[in-house]
Amino acid sequence: MAGNSIGKIFNVTTFGESHGVSLGCIVDGVPPGLKLSSSDLQIELNRRRPGSSRYTTERKELDQVEILSGIFEGVTTGTSIGLSIKNVDQRSQDYKTMKHVFRPGHADYTYTLKYGIRDYRGGGRSSARETSMRVAAGAIAKKYLKDKFNIKIRGYLKQMGPIICDFQSWDYVEKNPFFCPDPNKISLLKEFIKCLKKEGDSIGAQLILIAENVPAGLGEPVFDRLDAELAHSLMSINAVKAVEIGDGVQVANCKGSQHRDEICNNGFKTNHAGGILGGISNGDNIVVKITLKPTSSIKKPVNTIDDNNNNVSISIKGRHDPCVGLRAVPIAESMIAITLMDHLLRYTAQCFQVKNFLT
Amino acid sequence: MAGNSIGKIFNVTTFGESHGVSLGCIVDGVPPGLKLSSSDLQIELNRRRPGSSRYTTERKELDQVEILSGIFEGVTTGTSIGLSIKNVDQRSQDYKTMKHVFRPGHADYTYTLKYGIRDYRGGGRSSARETSMRVAAGAIAKKYLKDKFNIKIRGYLKQMGPIICDFQSWDYVEKNPFFCPDPNKISLLKEFIKCLKKEGDSIGAQLILIAENVPAGLGEPVFDRLDAELAHSLMSINAVKAVEIGDGVQVANCKGSQHRDEICNNGFKTNHAGGILGGISNGDNIVVKITLKPTSSIKKPVNTIDDNNNNVSISIKGRHDPCVGLRAVPIAESMIAITLMDHLLRYTAQCFQVKNFLT
Amino acid sequence: MAGNSIGKIFNVTTFGESHGVSLGCIVDGVPPGLKLSSSDLQIELNRRRPGSSRYTTERKELDQVEILSGIFEGVTTGTSIGLSIKNVDQRSQDYKTMKHVFRPGHADYTYTLKYGIRDYRGGGRSSARETSMRVAAGAIAKKYLKDKFNIKIRGYLKQMGPIICDFQSWDYVEKNPFFCPDPNKISLLKEFIKCLKKEGDSIGAQLILIAENVPAGLGEPVFDRLDAELAHSLMSINAVKAVEIGDGVQVANCKGSQHRDEICNNGFKTNHAGGILGGISNGDNIVVKITLKPTSSIKKPVNTIDDNNNNVSISIKGRHDPCVGLRAVPIAESMIAITLMDHLLRYTAQCFQVKNFLT
Amino acid sequence: MAGNSIGKIFNVTTFGESHGVSLGCIVDGVPPGLKLSSSDLQIELNRRRPGSSRYTTERKELDQVEILSGIFEGVTTGTSIGLSIKNVDQRSQDYKTMKHVFRPGHADYTYTLKYGIRDYRGGGRSSARETSMRVAAGAIAKKYLKDKFNIKIRGYLKQMGPIICDFQSWDYVEKNPFFCPDPNKISLLKEFIKCLKKEGDSIGAQLILIAENVPAGLGEPVFDRLDAELAHSLMSINAVKAVEIGDGVQVANCKGSQHRDEICNNGFKTNHAGGILGGISNGDNIVVKITLKPTSSIKKPVNTIDDNNNNVSISIKGRHDPCVGLRAVPIAESMIAITLMDHLLRYTAQCFQVKNFLT
Repeated sequence: MAGNSIGKIFNVTTFGESHGVSLGCIVDGVPPGLKLSSSDLQIELNRRRPGSSRYTTERKELDQVEILSGIFEGVTTGTSIGLSIKNVDQRSQDYKTMKHVFRPGHADYTYTLKYGIRDYRGGGRSSARETSMRVAAGAIAKKYLKDKFNIKIRGYLKQMGPIICDFQSWDYVEKNPFFCPDPNKISLLKEFIKCLKKEGDSIGAQLILIAENVPAGLGEPVFDRLDAELAHSLMSINAVKAVEIGDGVQVANCKGSQHRDEICNNGFKTNHAGGILGGISNGDNIVVKITLKPTSSIKKPVNTIDDNNNNVSISIKGRHDPCVGLRAVPIAESMIAITLMDHLLRYTAQCFQVKNFLT
Repeated sequence: MAGNSIGKIFNVTTFGESHGVSLGCIVDGVPPGLKLSSSDLQIELNRRRPGSSRYTTERKELDQVEILSGIFEGVTTGTSIGLSIKNVDQRSQDYKTMKHVFRPGHADYTYTLKYGIRDYRGGGRSSARETSMRVAAGAIAKKYLKDKFNIKIRGYLKQMGPIICDFQSWDYVEKNPFFCPDPNKISLLKEFIKCLKKEGDSIGAQLILIAENVPAGLGEPVFDRLDAELAHSLMSINAVKAVEIGDGVQVANCKGSQHRDEICNNGFKTNHAGGILGGISNGDNIVVKITLKPTSSIKKPVNTIDDNNNNVSISIKGRHDPCVGLRAVPIAESMIAITLMDHLLRYTAQCFQVKNFLT
Repeated sequence: MAGNSIGKIFNVTTFGESHGVSLGCIVDGVPPGLKLSSSDLQIELNRRRPGSSRYTTERKELDQVEILSGIFEGVTTGTSIGLSIKNVDQRSQDYKTMKHVFRPGHADYTYTLKYGIRDYRGGGRSSARETSMRVAAGAIAKKYLKDKFNIKIRGYLKQMGPIICDFQSWDYVEKNPFFCPDPNKISLLKEFIKCLKKEGDSIGAQLILIAENVPAGLGEPVFDRLDAELAHSLMSINAVKAVEIGDGVQVANCKGSQHRDEICNNGFKTNHAGGILGGISNGDNIVVKITLKPTSSIKKPVNTIDDNNNNVSISIKGRHDPCVGLRAVPIAESMIAITLMDHLLRYTAQCFQVKNFLT
Repeated sequence: MAGNSIGKIFNVTTFGESHGVSLGCIVDGVPPGLKLSSSDLQIELNRRRPGSSRYTTERKELDQVEILSGIFEGVTTGTSIGLSIKNVDQRSQDYKTMKHVFRPGHADYTYTLKYGIRDYRGGGRSSARETSMRVAAGAIAKKYLKDKFNIKIRGYLKQMGPIICDFQSWDYVEKNPFFCPDPNKISLLKEFIKCLKKEGDSIGAQLILIAENVPAGLGEPVFDRLDAELAHSLMSINAVKAVEIGDGVQVANCKGSQHRDEICNNGFKTNHAGGILGGISNGDNIVVKITLKPTSSIKKPVNTIDDNNNNVSISIKGRHDPCVGLRAVPIAESMIAITLMDHLLRYTAQCFQVKNFLT
């Protein structure tokens, strides 16, 4: 229990259900003196917002964030920051029929077994709506990392179903609803989503996330390695089923002579390691891949049981993303930002007297 | 900093360097009344022990563990358990030549940048010798989970380089030095390792880990999901570069209709999810895959820099595993045991009054 | 940093400033199945509410609490509970004159030195207004402890300045604005406060808190003893300068033969220990004393410096309690409830299989 | 459970029982680059050592500490430090007669109720022998605070039973076995202890602890205030029943005009606050008082029960301190050092860019 927090020094705690009054979070440990306004958060929230294109869920949420504390005269004071987003477009009646059945691929079954009770409206706490608060909190971390250390965290769609997107340029990524870096694939992606919606199905996806200008030295031995904590924070995102650092699963068939990155006096020649050595950032780009499962809520009928253990068949209506991976880019960026921010402060705590510190 | 601990209620803290006096750990939060002796730990340590076959490092360590506290008359008392393993076969002189150079693929460079100092003897704290304490602590968790809940945690080699091992039976796994479940691949694996040693190279590997009889309900929303914490604990093992739950990276090209596991009144029909839904165990087997990079310490020469930023070329001697993945099975099992144990106790704390509890 | 949380399993995190938009908190780790409504919280908040009598501050705050999540159909779901109280009666202009001076006895000076910035309006985060959220969170713990274990936590005024209140009956405590258990002292207390207000001064106080029906076994060796954690949570209340367990400071001149409580087969004969032995509750009443300093904000002029290090003399207007000890009873009860709740869950986690458990 | 750790960034975890193999601890979060040898720790341990004078227990323990990791070439490396002290002078047979009875004033009763089992030899984990590891860990913190910030932490005996010791000079404190700062009281103290031993009784004590040169800014709002964390760490010491900051319990009868410390451009004119305002250090001396109960193990007979709930009368032999307060000075200093160290690092993490930082 008490699992709604992340980070040791930069600490984020969230609350809120899909169909509750509001979603909120407390961001503790923000250093004083950071210029911050709600518009800094809103920019990021708008990137994740549901209903923003025809390729995502039709639920329309403004995701208007309000900062409730911790800022004075436009600047952080070092005290805890309260954030709030009101839910506006719930349609709880859509879920009444789901009250007694366990949707396959969802947390309905496990929440019921664990707690003996569940808020069935829109998935309750297990809904991806919870991720809006990750993005809001992550926006603060992102701002700090950018303003103070010029750290840049970005992501893009690498794969959706059978479609592989090759990286062409960051310029394209924010100009399409798929975070696709390859302009040649966009019409294909559109077509693919359209087909999926027609057949009432969904699809998985893979994203690549990159953090640039991360100083060497972040990450703590032995258990709180930077890669371990990134794996934690990214795997905690709904639907994520795999986290890879650098070359990831490909290293299973790779030799030591190929994988180890040579060092020369200009830095590393390659980056198979993904910017982390021995669990500590090495100054190169942090490169992470995540794979997200297809949305489980689809129109195609499926067999399951109800809470009386009867076999039933259901078809899920509601409003759902055909590919949750699409909106996951800002969420994943946020989780990386939160983790890097926490580790930056942890590093500072211990090593501020070390001469190489943050230079 | 202070990253040498893992677990919130079942808490493990370790210390020790490759060439230091001894390795040790404190296991806090073990419930009282568990029968426990050092032989319970030794069994697991012997599975990880270096020098146990010609296919691993030649460093000979007995890894004899001593229990220093927390047991009275053969039974745990509920107080913290201190463990110790003495180092016996250090050869620090092997590392003198490495004192001023940064070995590519190792933590030499990052430790130096982070701390301004490093114990160059055998990698110091970043050495895989540290994992002996994970196995010792994990053995306690394993014993508790087995004795009290009949939870069984096992792993096997899925892939080493180009060789794929198909699962035949658990019976084979412990009968060969590779944890290979496929008797037909053993001679091939031997041959492959022999070639690698001859050419002075190393290879990556992939392991599959399975936990059986895990009760439904383990894992906490939102950030401390069971999959997120498993990712954390497994990615914290040296050389691990990818963690996958259930079908893992394959879900990128998978449809919702294929991936979601149907439920019937006998349980789940399939287990694509790997036993976890919404971050909470669903009662099915927990299935996790990890991929480990090839050993970076190989005889083949490599370019790097010294601590004066001069370009140099080095060849690493010392005694090293040609495939670190081979000895990682007991380590990974231990990390899973530690994480499950922590979550079992966390679950108990909150839900002991819920009627479905642990049945 | 990140100090705005308390509790390991039952975890409370708060935000909010005296003159901010609102105060809020997240209560994580509440077991599922507890009947809970905002009126359960409001009852406790009304006991702490400013402006409720002429003997406290004149600031009028309704302290209307709203539950934003974690409850479904009147019952807790096991997920995090968000709470909110809006500020309504701020008078920030009262504090403009204080913008550049450091009020003696206040956190103005230390916040400025620590953060380089401070929200001077009403003390910002250091204001006692923050304690409303402790009471709201504590009310949840109180409800759980009462409903599930019949644990009762109450407090009363032991001393205000020279006036000692002898315990007569709990019946009197809630019937006067001083939480005084001695009906003969009430007119004296009224008179004393009236005089203090006239002379523009304030006074300290001492409270006694008692928790009844606490099961034996709460508290963890070695550092998280129950007494240590109670000391932590009570000393974290603004103005508290001393925490005593059982006979407290009097034991300095007490012999072992007098202090140790004899045990007979009906239980303990005396309770000098205050219900805690070796840091673990012994089943007897938990008895704690706290001493609170006099309000530092008084009309009497005082010497201090401004933020240019000039010596100045100030007189503090605003609206302030002449004795902060008076309204501290519900706050202290709440902190005890939070700590007991956390330890009850921690105990459960480890010892649920022990036969004596919670009987 | 898992209560054997203290500190968030500077983290200390201990193990060991009175009559076990050894006592040990892991100190995590020590910054790299601190010169450290076991003799730095031994100096402090010798001040606490049992059997060092005729006024303490007769158990003779060398308390020889060994550093097992975390130091390389005489300097801390930033990795976790393992410490060990072997038990040498156990006399477990002394306790056999106590196997089935609960010693009043001890943790026998509560450990049994909590865990269903207890190590009866010398109090097991609840023995004050555990404090040796606090002193060893505290010595590291003390060294760091002294070397890097010139922070000095010292304590003295203020009261033992009816004898009040007036502070004359620090010079006297270390020159008598009572840590008494008043040379005129030493023969009186000796005489008093002699009488106590003759009558088979024990006595309480009060200590004053002072930390000098603590920079302003340590302590985190709201729950992790410096005073709250000091209260926690000091109350966690065996036998401590009261913690007071600055004027402590005396403020109950004190007016605001008297208590608030005036500020002038040279600093504070008085120090009633004990160096802490709003939970944050103000740059003045930190002043704390603790009161310790009399030893419960005395020869005088006492009524109690055995584990079959029969009424019995016992007289405790073994070897015990007539006044545990005497040896508590180095322990209390250590706990203060650990807490200040943790907060110094926490402060650094957040405020390292604030211009006033640590100047």
